[in-house]
Order: sequence, then C-alpha cells, then structure tokens
Amino acid sequence: MSFAFAVTGTQGSARAADFTTPRGVVRTPCFMPVGTRGTVKGITPRELREAGSQIILANTFHLHLRPGEELIERLGGLHAFMGYDGPILTDSGGFQVFSLTDLRKLREEGVAFKSPIDGADCFLSPEIATGIQRALGANIIMAFDECPPATMEGAALRESTERTLRWLERCLSVGLKPHQCMFPIVQGGMDAALRVESARRTLAIKGDAVGYAVGGLAVGEPKDVTYRMLEASIAELPANKPRYMMGIGTPLDLIMAVDRGVDMFDCVLPTRNARNARVFVPGGGLNLRNAEHRDNPSPIMEGCDCYACKSGFSRAYLHHLHKSDEMLGGILASIHNIRYLIRMCEEMRAAILGGKWEEFKASAKVA
Amino acid sequence: MSFAFAVTGTQGSARAADFTTPRGVVRTPCFMPVGTRGTVKGITPRELREAGSQIILANTFHLHLRPGEELIERLGGLHAFMGYDGPILTDSGGFQVFSLTDLRKLREEGVAFKSPIDGADCFLSPEIATGIQRALGANIIMAFDECPPATMEGAALRESTERTLRWLERCLSVGLKPHQCMFPIVQGGMDAALRVESARRTLAIKGDAVGYAVGGLAVGEPKDVTYRMLEASIAELPANKPRYMMGIGTPLDLIMAVDRGVDMFDCVLPTRNARNARVFVPGGGLNLRNAEHRDNPSPIMEGCDCYACKSGFSRAYLHHLHKSDEMLGGILASIHNIRYLIRMCEEMRAAILGGKWEEFKASAKVA
Repeated sequence: MSFAFAVTGTQGSARAADFTTPRGVVRTPCFMPVGTRGTVKGITPRELREAGSQIILANTFHLHLRPGEELIERLGGLHAFMGYDGPILTDSGGFQVFSLTDLRKLREEGVAFKSPIDGADCFLSPEIATGIQRALGANIIMAFDECPPATMEGAALRESTERTLRWLERCLSVGLKPHQCMFPIVQGGMDAALRVESARRTLAIKGDAVGYAVGGLAVGEPKDVTYRMLEASIAELPANKPRYMMGIGTPLDLIMAVDRGVDMFDCVLPTRNARNARVFVPGGGLNLRNAEHRDNPSPIMEGCDCYACKSGFSRAYLHHLHKSDEMLGGILASIHNIRYLIRMCEEMRAAILGGKWEEFKASAKVA
Repeated sequence: MSFAFAVTGTQGSARAADFTTPRGVVRTPCFMPVGTRGTVKGITPRELREAGSQIILANTFHLHLRPGEELIERLGGLHAFMGYDGPILTDSGGFQVFSLTDLRKLREEGVAFKSPIDGADCFLSPEIATGIQRALGANIIMAFDECPPATMEGAALRESTERTLRWLERCLSVGLKPHQCMFPIVQGGMDAALRVESARRTLAIKGDAVGYAVGGLAVGEPKDVTYRMLEASIAELPANKPRYMMGIGTPLDLIMAVDRGVDMFDCVLPTRNARNARVFVPGGGLNLRNAEHRDNPSPIMEGCDCYACKSGFSRAYLHHLHKSDEMLGGILASIHNIRYLIRMCEEMRAAILGGKWEEFKASAKVA
C-alpha cells in the first residue's frame, strides 16, 4: 500500500498525522502551495522545498487547456515536467469550470465550456477529468464535482449535490495508476443537513478512499457559515483518513479548520496577495506598497525564517521593488507568504503533539 | 590601496587579470549583470552568486528617480539595500539621459530632463551624477559623459567629445568615499582619430584612474565600426589598468572585445532577451516560444551548469511557461543567459591563462 495515514496526536478535534504517499510522508496539518499551470508563480522548486513545502497542488483545468495532459504524460508526467519530486495533488477542474458562468453549459454527462485561451469548445466529464489527472501523473486525484454557488438552495442544491454523488461513481470507474489515489469531495452547499447526507452517501459509495475533501466552501458565504458547513461535512468522515478542505486560506481559516479536524489546505491567496505586495505578518497583513514602508529598514517580519526575511531584505527595498513593478518584489513576497503559512502549520502540529493546542489558539495572532 | 589590478596572463592583446576591489577580487575577463533598479530582473542575489557573478552594475538614473539616493544612503547604501555584498559599479546616468531625446535639454552645465515616471523636472550634471553615485555607495563610479548618437560627426562630435573631457574634470572635483573609485570614459563617436585624442586627453586629465571605460559604442553602428572604434579607444590606454567596454553584449561581442584587450562588460541583453524567451546556446540563440520546442525534453543546453539546465527543466516546460506568461519562464531563462555569458568569460580566462586563446577563438561557436 503506497498510501497510509497515521494520526500521531489529537487535541479535541484537532489532529497531527503522518500521511504517507508514494512521493514521501506529508506531516499534517499541511498547507499545499498552488501551482496552477505547473508552476507556483515566481518560485523555483528549490525555493518551494526550502519554504518547507511537502506537497503542492496543480490545476487540471489549466494544464488540460495548455500544454495538455498528453504532452505532459509523454514527457514523463507532471513531476518531471515541473521539476518537483514531492507529492502532487490535482484538482478536478470542477471549480474552474463552474467559475466560468457565462462560458459553460452543464449537463448530466458533464460540462461544456469555451476555452478562455482561444474560445475553443471544450468538455469535461467525470471520466475525462479523471483521465486527465491520471495522465498528468498526480498522486492525489480529486473527483470531478459540481461546485454550486453559495446562493444555491432548495431543489437545485439537492439536485447538484446528488449529481456530484452520481459523478463520483463515474470518476471511480476510471482506473488509476499504481501511485495514484482519488479523494471524493463532500458538497451540499450551505445546507448542513445536505452536507451530512453528502458525506454519508459519499462514504456509502467509496468507504475505503485514501482521503476525503470538503468542497464548495469559502465561496463568498460568511465565515460562521463556512465553519458550520465544515463541521457538518466532517462529522461523518472517518477519523483515520486525511481530510482536505479546499480553497482556504488565511491564517485564521487554517486555525479554525484545524480546530475542526482538517488536515490539508490549499489556496492561491498567499501567492496572489504577494504579487500585489500584500504579505502576512502576525496580527494580519500589510501592503508593502504603502508609503509607510518607504524607508523602513526592518524585514517583512522580525524572526521570520523565510529566505526574504532572513537575508535581510528590508520593507523599504520590497516597497521599492513593488512600486517599480520589479519581478523580485513578487518573488520575495511569495516566498515569505508561503513560508508563513507552512510554518504556521508546523507550529500547529507541534502544539497538537505537545498538548498545547488551546494555548496556541489563545495566543495566535491572526486576522 | 583598496583597488589593484594585476594582469596574470596575456595572449596577443587579450588578457586575464585579477582586479582587486574593496568587495573582493574580480577575475577578468568579466561580464557584469545589470541590476537597473537595484535588482537584476527576476533573480535573487543568491542565484546571481550561483551563476558566478563577481560584480554587478546598477543604474544611477533609475535609482536617482526612484527610490532616490538619499533613501538608499540612509539605509546603508546600495549593497545593503539590494542584499548584494560583491562589488557594484554604477553608470553615471549619461546614457539614459541622452536616450531621452524628446525629454531632455543639454547645456554646458548639465542635462535637464523630464522624469519618465511622473514628468517632474530633473537635472543631472557631472557634480550631481557623481554625488548620486557616491551616496549610493557604488565601488566603481562612472564619470558623467555625453553619449552622442552614432550619426553625430564633424564639429558637433568634436564639441561633444570635448564636453565629456570638461565634464570629467568636474566629476573629479567631487570627493569620493574611501571604498570608491571613478572610471573616466573615452568617447569620440565613430571618428577613430577623435577617439585616440579622447583617450590621450582623458589620460592627461586623470592618468592615475583605477580603470578606464570605452563608451558610445554598440549604439547602432555596424559591428566592424564598433571594433575599429574600440581599437582606437584602447590603443592609448595603459596596459596595467582595467578596461571596461560599456553596453555589450552578445557572445560574439565579448570575444571580439577580449581579443582587443577589454576586461569588463555589461549588457541588459541576457536578461531582457530571457524575459522574451530568447536564450543563448552554442552557435547562436533560440526562442523558447517557437513551436519547435513544444515537446522537446532537452534542457536549453546540454551540459550547461546553470540552475535551469542542470535541474532538468526541459525546453518543453520553458516553452509552456513562456506561452503562459508565467514568471518562472523569465526567471529560468535569465539564470541561464547570465550563467552562459559568465561561463564564457571563465572559459576565455582559462584559454588566455592556458595559452590557448587562438584555439578558443577558432572553436568558439558564437553568432
């Protein structure tokens, strides 16, 4: 068995675990940097590793459109293609397709859409999305799900949630390569009962999955709703399997999710924000473009062990780089933000293993 | 004496030398990467060092406009500001000001121009340009010269060349910091006799300069003219001082200049080309955006020891990155191009010291 999951410590619902994959052990809680098009924007694989990255995410939707999974498979798979030897998780493309509200048409068979690159007619289905991920060579493949908007409710939401279950069965009909596994995704919109039902029926379809994901959250709903829906989604999931909450997040999101039993996260926020000069610091964030940083000799964050901070690059220098639209501004800020979230996961893990989770939560400076 | 220059080997006019600076010894021939705004675009100082960079160039014009030399001086100087501990050479801003043909007004006192950032009225003179470089903390400061266009001739060219000499005397009237020196610049346009005269009169004004530069070449004139003007400029310069040819270049330019006795070079070409997907390979260059690279599993150059090539990033991956406008495409191509030119300098040095310069020239695959 090339995948295994061993919980090594718990504090309430929060847990620390060792998630064994064919590309190495992932120590959780774990933040996965997002490499949308086969590159975490602006960062070399070496810098990613130095930032403590254990596993990264890549996007099926984008890689399918360009350069295409056939090419990547022929060149030895996504690991070889992008020079990253750790485990890779690919999303199914569902989230991106459903974001194309004007460009897509949903049928039971799948989703037809226009390529945002060249307008070409494209089609994704459970079988196609799984086949693409298999060809990419991802270690963790996500089921192709429907991602309803936060506002969907009633019969439409039930139909959407049931479609995701029907699609899961079709995803599972596609054979994977030996070093691959598939995570089903719990949906159910902003309806707690439907989320519980989605989780139960997901387990009925695939009780022996390597891990399970919670999707369709952090899509615009209030935070308290996010957390309630997360709790409903997770309550039924087995304790001995990794739980991946998709698309978060902020330092606060990570703590709230870990506190509810989540093990894995991904989000474009740290790198997207970084390219816009916004960086994480204890207590919140700051925008390096603001004039207050113009002549500040301090690093982004005192004591931070990221390459940017420990090398002594000042806020003043980063302010200058961002004001001048120099690439290095986004590069250094991205390295900092990724390291910030990964270090926070390391600290959460240490707190859980050390029996100090409540103290960690109480003292965490997040916003 | 914090600067020294020792020629350690010659072959014809070509020479290898150790140029001691207060920030370390520069082994020549030497290519200096250009960090226009206090950053070599897209590359961290660590990656620069790994590429073999011994000394870099920064631009007085750009740093004066933003963030301003006063700020940089207050923060500990340019080395601290940009996190580069090796020697730094700054140009005088002359080249940039004279490139603003529509925005500037030349007087004997100096050059008035509009800031390309915000249209503000600016003024550079020999004293001001030298003062800016002193404040930046550069180790090698360039004299503020007039850079005539390649088409200037006759009385206008003589007047321009003489103005550069008068301006040199004014530059020299500004006191420098202990770890700094100034290189005068030989001008004279495309008139060989005037170049000889410029060199002679430069030496008459400042015979004990640490080094000398040749400016105003590679500004659009044919290659054979460049080389003839270079020969005329260099003939009178002392053999025991470094010679810096400004603004070249290509692999071919480097070999032709070293063959004529040049020790130092700078050019934005390797990084600017890299951001446009154009990379150096033996025999010339290639454009990674071209469809022929779409599924090529080879690195940019077999056997290259740059981070991009030795890490195994394929031309196919780089093609994908550049087609997708991903930052990493420009980053990896920049690292390759800088390493390519620096390695070529290392090879030229070894050939000169090993008595194999003629063989090197005969076998060099350049275009």
